This record gives sequence, structure tokens and C-alpha cells, in this order.
Amino acid sequence: MKQVIIKTLLLSTLLIPILLHAENGYNLWLQYTPIENTSIKQQYTYQLQSFSISGDSETASIIRSELKSAFKGMLGIDIPETGDGDLKIQLDKINDLGSEGFRIASKTNQPLTITANTEIGLLYGTFHLLKIMQLQQSITNLNIQESPKIQHRVLNHWDNLDRTSERGYAGFSIWDWHRLPDYLDPRYSDYARANASIGINGTVLTNVNANALVLTPTYIEKVKALADLFRPYGIKVYLTARFSAPIEIGGLSTADPLNKEVAKWWTDKVKEIYKEIPDFGGFLVKANSEGQPGPHNYGRTHADGANMLARALKPYGGIVMWRAFVYSEEKPDDRAKQAYDEFVPLDGTFDDNVMVQVKNGPIDFQPREPFHPMFGATPKTPLMMEFQITQEYLGQATNLVYLAPMYKECLNSDTYAKGRGSEVAKVIDGSLFNHQLTGIAGVANIGTDINWTGHPMAQVNWYAFGRLAWNPELSSEEIAREWIGQTFGNDPKITKPILEIMLRSWEAAVHYMTPLGLHHLMGTGHHYGPAPWVSNLGRPDWNPVYYHKADAEGIGFDRTKTGSNAVNQYFTPNNEIFGSLKKCPEKFLLWFHHVPWQYKMASGNTLWNELALTYQEGVNTVRSMQKKWQSLEGKIDDERFSEVKMLLKIQEKEAIWWKDASLLYFSTFSKLPLPEGVESPKHDLEYYQSLSFPFAPGIRPQW
Amino acid sequence: MKQVIIKTLLLSTLLIPILLHAENGYNLWLQYTPIENTSIKQQYTYQLQSFSISGDSETASIIRSELKSAFKGMLGIDIPETGDGDLKIQLDKINDLGSEGFRIASKTNQPLTITANTEIGLLYGTFHLLKIMQLQQSITNLNIQESPKIQHRVLNHWDNLDRTSERGYAGFSIWDWHRLPDYLDPRYSDYARANASIGINGTVLTNVNANALVLTPTYIEKVKALADLFRPYGIKVYLTARFSAPIEIGGLSTADPLNKEVAKWWTDKVKEIYKEIPDFGGFLVKANSEGQPGPHNYGRTHADGANMLARALKPYGGIVMWRAFVYSEEKPDDRAKQAYDEFVPLDGTFDDNVMVQVKNGPIDFQPREPFHPMFGATPKTPLMMEFQITQEYLGQATNLVYLAPMYKECLNSDTYAKGRGSEVAKVIDGSLFNHQLTGIAGVANIGTDINWTGHPMAQVNWYAFGRLAWNPELSSEEIAREWIGQTFGNDPKITKPILEIMLRSWEAAVHYMTPLGLHHLMGTGHHYGPAPWVSNLGRPDWNPVYYHKADAEGIGFDRTKTGSNAVNQYFTPNNEIFGSLKKCPEKFLLWFHHVPWQYKMASGNTLWNELALTYQEGVNTVRSMQKKWQSLEGKIDDERFSEVKMLLKIQEKEAIWWKDASLLYFSTFSKLPLPEGVESPKHDLEYYQSLSFPFAPGIRPQW
Repeated sequence: MKQVIIKTLLLSTLLIPILLHAENGYNLWLQYTPIENTSIKQQYTYQLQSFSISGDSETASIIRSELKSAFKGMLGIDIPETGDGDLKIQLDKINDLGSEGFRIASKTNQPLTITANTEIGLLYGTFHLLKIMQLQQSITNLNIQESPKIQHRVLNHWDNLDRTSERGYAGFSIWDWHRLPDYLDPRYSDYARANASIGINGTVLTNVNANALVLTPTYIEKVKALADLFRPYGIKVYLTARFSAPIEIGGLSTADPLNKEVAKWWTDKVKEIYKEIPDFGGFLVKANSEGQPGPHNYGRTHADGANMLARALKPYGGIVMWRAFVYSEEKPDDRAKQAYDEFVPLDGTFDDNVMVQVKNGPIDFQPREPFHPMFGATPKTPLMMEFQITQEYLGQATNLVYLAPMYKECLNSDTYAKGRGSEVAKVIDGSLFNHQLTGIAGVANIGTDINWTGHPMAQVNWYAFGRLAWNPELSSEEIAREWIGQTFGNDPKITKPILEIMLRSWEAAVHYMTPLGLHHLMGTGHHYGPAPWVSNLGRPDWNPVYYHKADAEGIGFDRTKTGSNAVNQYFTPNNEIFGSLKKCPEKFLLWFHHVPWQYKMASGNTLWNELALTYQEGVNTVRSMQKKWQSLEGKIDDERFSEVKMLLKIQEKEAIWWKDASLLYFSTFSKLPLPEGVESPKHDLEYYQSLSFPFAPGIRPQW
Repeated sequence: MKQVIIKTLLLSTLLIPILLHAENGYNLWLQYTPIENTSIKQQYTYQLQSFSISGDSETASIIRSELKSAFKGMLGIDIPETGDGDLKIQLDKINDLGSEGFRIASKTNQPLTITANTEIGLLYGTFHLLKIMQLQQSITNLNIQESPKIQHRVLNHWDNLDRTSERGYAGFSIWDWHRLPDYLDPRYSDYARANASIGINGTVLTNVNANALVLTPTYIEKVKALADLFRPYGIKVYLTARFSAPIEIGGLSTADPLNKEVAKWWTDKVKEIYKEIPDFGGFLVKANSEGQPGPHNYGRTHADGANMLARALKPYGGIVMWRAFVYSEEKPDDRAKQAYDEFVPLDGTFDDNVMVQVKNGPIDFQPREPFHPMFGATPKTPLMMEFQITQEYLGQATNLVYLAPMYKECLNSDTYAKGRGSEVAKVIDGSLFNHQLTGIAGVANIGTDINWTGHPMAQVNWYAFGRLAWNPELSSEEIAREWIGQTFGNDPKITKPILEIMLRSWEAAVHYMTPLGLHHLMGTGHHYGPAPWVSNLGRPDWNPVYYHKADAEGIGFDRTKTGSNAVNQYFTPNNEIFGSLKKCPEKFLLWFHHVPWQYKMASGNTLWNELALTYQEGVNTVRSMQKKWQSLEGKIDDERFSEVKMLLKIQEKEAIWWKDASLLYFSTFSKLPLPEGVESPKHDLEYYQSLSFPFAPGIRPQW
């Protein structure tokens, strides 16, 4: 009894200060903060007095230490390991669980069991149970069975060997190549823990704009150190393969994929890698895109290039992820059409360990894009989804934008490839065309910042990517609730405003940056802030003016039959819907149509007024996000409260900047005044055009 | 009584796990870990039941929150603030304390008082008291009075606006320029706290290889945000002034310091800065050195340049720190002589708010250098010491090297400028030539790594710099003991081995890198690892062969009368001692003399054998450091234990690498075998010469 009193006192005196103590965000959603609800705490403490797990493997040790620290944190107790625990974590043969699934079951007066075919399944099950507990949900009468819907759930780090990170806004690369392999930064295991907790099972360590040096022995030894560390967490490492590596580090005079010496060089190189890393995942390749070398340099196809690498990897079970992000340097067609034009004719020519990795939309991770027309168009080729988690075009490190709704809009889009019900998600999970090889990639937003992602709220985008990779059917709201509960706590006074902020944030960003289907209007190079006026770049399709095509008549890119006819890449009825001015969803209106300024929108407003009001609505939403955030003062820790508050203030400034600069510029064409309800610009157009950001973060160094 | 039991239990159950819990190093020496010694804890708790401090200033708030979190951490109690506390922190007029000093006094049954003339003095006094408590020393019958011996105690950050850090090995710059001024990283206040705790009162935010953009309004606004944040911690901000800024951002056609428009441009610029930052510290300037622009470009002297800036700053109390690190691009004289040759003739021509900032030795922060001959040679010009805290030439981020002994060797050196007793420290603290304006700078080793300094043990070099800047008379051992106690705890089983490791570490590094006065033998550009063979760089004095001058006869740089006669820049008797083969301390032998391989050393060994054995001794010392560190397993937290263990393993590898590469190379001249006791090289010379490190950290980007 005395013991109980002491514990209670201990909790009441100590834990509240801890909860409100500065929280630097390093622990992500694995906070394991003390559970304050006494009845739930008692239930957990009563039901889980001990645990058992067999085996001495590294994965078993990881499960052990995760359980111990989680119980210590949430319940304040040291949970003992016994031969026959209240919580049994055990391997068993279960037919429909696969190599990564798990089952969690509990019945009254019986042990709670986590069962799986593999230790990785047990690890995933353990994290699932700890999530339930962090969310303070009941653990009685559980009957959960989960396995991932997609096979390869992979982060892409656009990280360079000098630790700069292209489009990274959270500091620099967490890979300290210089001190590898002998110094293992404690961050590496925390990175692996975080990924395992959401089911991410692969990581591409290097930038798609690749450097061949990572394939030299010095670096393979460093990669091996990371692979060894990540293995017990169920994470495979992949590398980007620079197509010209046989020349640059192999001493050959060509990198022609049909040249025997080249194929042999890659075969030997792959053998060398697998000797050190027996479960190496394979290669991600950006070829013949934005200056990267590739098979076209030798008159070969993407399939020739991909298959050459695939054959080297095949004996070891490795795969090739070949990116479809290409736009021809020769033919000046609508950039939105080019990946489809190059890759769809190659369908059926790729080896069976190749996936083609396609961005969610046909341009380039714009704030909002219609789904990529390749989805559904290559029945014989497994397509891997490439989402961007880092916010290159969505406010970078200063804007709070919850990306799950964007991912979901794409995944839920119906391609009609095999009639109604042919959603993008079914292309990706292999079910539509019966592919076994499936994958999804997220361009990481992780860097050296203490909180990993720069903006404390950007952690959720890493989390949401992992959760949707595991199960694309989860809703944005479900994922947000999970994350908020684990990250900030379960008090509705906390969860409700944060949820409301998050769920409106993406739409808000689209509104103040590129409403109604506008796209590619950002600053040159760094992609920071608005620059719709830019028209002087080397190729037409690098310029914002190429995309908005504003003139005295109207604005928007005609991609119907009278224009580039990009709509024709979509299946019926999408081609008809997108191609019809009346039927086209207004959110994509200016993506597919050049529309007169006086065109009447569904609201009854003219296009010009609607455009202006939508920009303003974006700004207004940010202000309402600020208000909701303010309500959290004193309810969450001061450190994250004030960080997000400062960032929302910047977000408001930037939203106004986007609105003002864009409307001032477009008004030079429309010659129309701003409608009532739209705030006057703070500066003139010349001011916005004069702004320069020579040291904006995330730019690829030019050396 | 119940209360007491609970507290005791609380401590015994909770605090030990906390102590051994993963410690990521972020809290530096401000750990405030629970005091385990019950009698000391009781004494503190009894004596300090409350505190009082007057005022609502930001500095008072900082003192308050520091006290509260320190008491919470060390004693587990919330110390209340009352009108009349047991600990009184109060302003008072005390004649001999100056603007930064403090007095701490305690008598039986009377309040413990911290008194100062200024709030910054109170802050320093508070940190001093908390240090005493962290060291678990008695707080009864205190009678402490301290004030700093040097006026300007400044960190130099060689940080670029793109967040790279020249010669930074702890990640990247902590200044997130892009998100300033609106986003204030919580790190900024923790940086300020740490500096204030050791008395550092100034920070130069930008690289000496300067970018003029930091002087534009956009950046001044960002600098102001930092200055506002640092002000209540007693820290002034300084900037590096690019001499050609009037051309680059001012639109002028010249930067000639005697041109009136140029002087006016600087006057206006300084006025603009002070409007935003009323206590701006001033400028640090690297001019006409390694490609930086300067007054020589216009046929003017360093004094012309410095005085022009000084006159702009004078009305506001700002100062110029003008670097003496120059070596002429025209006259090919011994590089060691050139700063003296350029600056000593200018003595008496500098304005009274100019200090000339001189590196500790005449070359460039080598592992060991004799003190710079300028110290003592400019009686009319205050010299500011420039130490390097970042380990550019001392193992960078992987070697444990405690630098206080190196700083002390320099500070304690007798210049004989005014006869015996004219130590360098007395030049720096102004006492030798009666200067009021005094200063000391340390090139920071701080970066974005969670533990701030990359190597966990490199934190001590930041600490030691601050402590010696406050009081150059402190001993290396005293400083080490203070730091260890606060950082790792006071158990002799912990403090003794760490102290032993630290005190031997600098000498060890000198031995395995550049023994017996050798210098400048490192890899080109990145300065990582040995490359004594390099002879192909653009100018003679960039090449290692210029410095060691090994040949069939012997090795070493003849700086006596028969050589460059650099010894002549020293006062008598130093010139005679250094100039005499017999009298010259062996640690500087090859710095001043070209010595035959068969020369008999004091030990009786030949020079060659002594050289080889000294390299080996360096390696052996690292191994004994490893052993001592191993004894700490389980006694300190696992995270820092294993980090340092990994790094010591790398240090051993690198020590062997230095030894093997250097001895193999020198043996091509000496043609002599390695003596007994020296391990055979692991590879041949060609191997070491083939090593390449294109992405070594800390190199200045070439854009």
C-alpha cells in the first residue's frame, strides 16, 4: 500500500512537469510519456506484469529494450522478462501473415500474445501494441491481424556524400560518411527504430542525382556498417546507381548497357556489394533526366538500361527502381506528357525484378497535381509510387502542411484502367494487374535538425507516408489522430485543435500558392516563394510562364484536344472529364484548360474573382490555424508550442507573399481589380520581383 | 517525515536510471544531474530553501529559470522565490568588481549572497554558484570574488551564409539564416546559456573569409534577432567585414580606405547597423590574406584599413579586430616571419579601438607551435589572442585532444619583452604594456551535431577556452576537473581516468602527428591525415616539403642565422635559446633547426630513432587512453561511453596512419631502419599516398 502511495505521489509531483517540460522533438512519435489516466494505467499495469520473448537475436534485443523503455516511460515500471509472461511475443507459423505480418490477441485471464512468422513481424507487432498503449486504448479482447499491402516501403534520401541534402530543409544529411564505418552515430539506430515503428523496410541512402564514388570499396564499407545496423530493424539499404559509373570509377570508355564489358563491370560490382551486404536491396536510378547520364546516351532504351542492372542483381534477389521522371531534352512537347510517352511503349520489356518509379503527378511534386496518367497504363510493368515527403514545393521548412490528404487524393483516384474501381492504390499494391513485386517510395524530409524534420509538425508526413505504405486504405484523419495522440497526448483539448489545423493545412497551402490547378510558379532553383513572372530560363518548360500561360484573354494550360491533348493519356471517362471545361473539377481547371478571366465558376464568381478569393482564403485559413494553435498554450510543452507558433507566423507572411505577388502579376494580364474581401497587396510587383535568396536551403551545390 | 521518505525513495529508484540513461550531450556541462551524496544534498537543501532576486529584466528571468531548473535537477525540489530568500541575488556598488565581476559570500545562519554591479555580473555569479554545487563542494563560508582578466572574450564562428562551416567538424553552422529573424531555434538560447556560464561575452557570427551580403538590410535584420536574444546573456554580436563590401554591395568602384566615399559608405553602414543593434560589438577583418581583399589592393597599410573602420565604429563604442594572419603573396620569405614583418613596423599607427588579432603561433594552428614572436613586440598596439578551438590540425572530429595544455603553453611563454616575467598572458591581459582594451578569440568548434562539438569530449575545449579567457592563470588540470565533474560526475572512479586521458592527449597527438617541432605535414585542402610528401602546390609555402625540408642529411627548417633567421624576431634570450641547437627545447627542435639524422638527442638516441620512437609513443598513449576509457563502462552513461570508445578506436587507427605514412616517407631520406619498439607499417608508402578524401568535412565550398 505504501508502495502505491509513493508511486501516486511520484507521478503527481514528477510527471506533470516532465510532460510540460521542453520537448525538443527528437523522440518523434515514440514519446512514451507517462499515462495520466489512472484507470487505463491500472488496467495496463495489472494486465502486463511481465513479458516473455524467445531468442537472443538482435531483433529480439531491440524488442526487449523498446518494451522496457516504453513501460518505464508510460507506466513508470520496470517490466520484468520471465519464461512465461503476461505478454508473450512468439514466433509461430501462420499462413496468411506473410513475412512481415503479425497477430495480437488477448482474452480475459490469458496472456496477451503477439505472434508472427518472423522476428520482424514480432517487432512490428510490438510497435503496434505500444501504439495502442500510447493512444490509451483498451488492450483487452484484442484480435488484430495486420500485414503490409505493399512489399517495398522505401525512403529516398536525396543526400549527397558531402552531407548536403537536395531539397532537404531540416539541416543536412544524417549520414556522417566521413566518420563511417567506425563511428555509428546514435541517430542511426533511432532512425531505424522510427522507421520500423511505422513499417518502413527500405532506405535509399543517396541522391538520385548520383555520385559514382558511393560504389567504391571505401564507401561500400561505410554502407555495410549502416546495413548491419539497420538489418535487425527489418530495413534494407539501397543505393542510387550513377549510370556512367563504369566510366567514372571503372576505367571503361563507355557505359553502354549492351556492351559486354559494361554488363560485366556491373555484375562484378554487384557481386562485390553483396559480398559485404548479403541482403542489399538494389538500385534506384535516375537516368536521362535533368542531365543525368543514361541508356539514351548510347541509343538504348530505359528498358535496356534497367534490365542490364536487373540481371546483375537478380541472382541475389535485388531489384531495380527505375525512375520515370524524365522530360526529353529534344522534343519540345508538353512536359506533362513525356514520361508516359517514353515509358508506356516499353511496357512488357522490363525484367521481372524492375519497377518503374512514378511520381504521384505528371509534372513534379506540385502543391496539387492530378494523378500521373502512367498509373494503370502499364499492365505488364509494376509501378512504384514516388511521393515527396520533403516539402520542396509546399513551404519547405516553414509551412505546416499535412500531406496525407494529398497522398490519399492520388491513391484514391480512379484510373478506370480496367473500368470503375481501378484506383491508383490498386496499381501500386499490385492487385489491379496481379503483380507480386510492389513498392512505394517517399522522398525523405529527414535531416540533422534535432527534431529530424525541421518543422516539428513535418514529422507527421514521415509518419503518414509509412502508415499509408503499410496500408493505403487508412484515412488521413485516422493517421493524424494516431500521430497526434502519440506525439502530443490524448487530451481532446490538445487533439481536436491540432487535428483541425492539420486536416485543413494542405488545401490552405494549395490555395495560397497555386489555386484552381495552377502549378510550377515557384522561385527559380531554390523553389522558395512565388515567381510566376519568370520567363528567361534555358528551356521553355523550366519557366513558370510556360505553365500558367496568362494573357489578356485568360489563364491556364490547354491540355485538351485544342492544346497539348495530354488529357488523352487518361482512360475514359477521365479523358472526357478532364477535357471538358464544364466537367473538369475546378481544383484542376487551370491544369487542363486555358480559361477566360470572366468565365463563370460554379460559385457564380468570375474566374478572376474566384482566383483572388481563393488566394485570400488560403491566407485566412492560415490565420485560423494560428488561432487554433494559440489555444494550445500551456496544454502542450512550451518548446514545441512556441516553435510552431513562430513558424505559423512565418507561414502567414509567406501566404500573404504568395497571394500578393501572384495576384499583382496576374492582374497585369486581367487588368481587373481585386474583389471585395481580398486584402490589398503590401508592396508593389517590382518589390516582389526584386527579392533574392542566394542562400536558400536545399539547393544542390554546383560543384 | 513521510515527505522525506518519499523523496529518498524517489531518488533511489528514479535517479540512478536517469544518470545511466542515454545522454546525448546536448546539455554540455550544465547537466544538473541529481546529487547522490546525501550529506551534501541535505546541506544544500537545508541552506537554500528559497531565493530572492530583484527586477523583471530578461537577465533576471534567465537567472530565475536557471536556478529553478538547476535546483530541480540537482536536488529534485522546486526552489521558491521569496522577498527575502536564503539565497540573495542582488545588485550593489562594489568598487573593484567592474562591470562583469561578482562576489559570493556565505556565513553561518546568514543568507548566501551573490552581489555584483550589473545584472550580467549576477548571472555570472549564479553560474559560478551552480558550478560549485555541481562539483558538490561546500557552500558554507564562501568568500569568492571574481572578475574577468580579459575584456573581450569572443568566439569566432567560421560559418558561411549557406550554413557550411569552414574547419567545422560538428555538422554545420547553427545559424539558420534562412529562417531568421522570425524563427528562433531553441539552440540559440542554449548556446547563449552555455557561453554565459563560462563568461564568453562576444560572438563573431560569420567566417573571416567573409561574404558582404551579411551587411545588407535583409541580413542585418537577422543579426539583430540574434543580438536581441544574446543581449540578456551578456553576449555582443560581431560580424566579419569584407573589405570590398563597398564595391560588392555598395555600388562603389573602389574600396580604398583613404577614399572619402568609401569611408562614408562604412560610416553609413555602421550607423545602419547600430540603429538596429545599439550594442553591436564591431568588426573582425581578414584582409590581404589568402585571397581576401584589403588595403594593400590600394597601396595602403593594414593600419589605414583598420583605422577607417575603427573611425566608423568609434562613436558607438565598437571595435575592430584586425587579423595578423597574413603571408605575403609577393616576397618569398619564411612564412613564419611575415606577420611580424608586416605588423611590427605599424606599431603606434592603429587607432585606440583597434586590436590586432594574432594566432598563438607564427604558422597556422599547428599541433604545436612556439609562441608567435609578435607577442611583446608591439607595445603600443593591443594584441588579441586567436586560439583555435576547432581541431583543424588536431584530429578534427575524431580525435580526443584536450587543448588547455596547448593554450597554457603559449600563455605561459615568457616573451622577455620587458625582461623576465613578460609572459604572453600579460600581453593579452593588457598588464605588460598597460592596455585597457584587451581581448581573446577562440575559433569555435560548435556545429549542428546534437552534442554541439561532434566529439563528445571536444566540449571541454569550448569550456576551457572560456575559462582561460576569464582567467588565464587557471591550470589545465583545474579546468579539466571542473569540466569532468559537471559533465560526467564527481565519483573518483570516473574523474580520475578521464582526467588522466585528457591531460596526456595533446602531447600524444603532437607525438603521432608532428613530433619534435615538425609542422604543416597534413593533407591538402581538408587538412585530414598525413601528407608530408606533397610538393606540387601553387606556392612553395603551401607544401609540406617546404616545412620539413627532409633530405639525405637530416630534417627540419633552419630558422637560425644560417637559415631564415626567424629566431631573430624573438627577444633575448629566446632568440639565443631557439637559435642554439643545444639549448633549443627538443619539442621545437625541427621548427628551428635542420638536424642530421644521426644527431644525438638528450635521451642518447639518434634523431632518427627518437623521431620514430616518438611517433610510436603517440600511438601507445592512444592505446593507454583506450584502456582507461574502457574502465568507465557502466560507470557513465552508455551513449557517451560507446561514442567515445568508437572514436578512440578511430583515433588509434589515425595515429598509426600518421606514424606509418610519416616514417615510411622520411625513411626515403634517412635510409635508416626503424628502431626496436616501433611497429612495422601496415601498408607501403604508395598506399598512403593514394588515399583520397574528396568529401572530408570542413572544407570551404569553392563557389
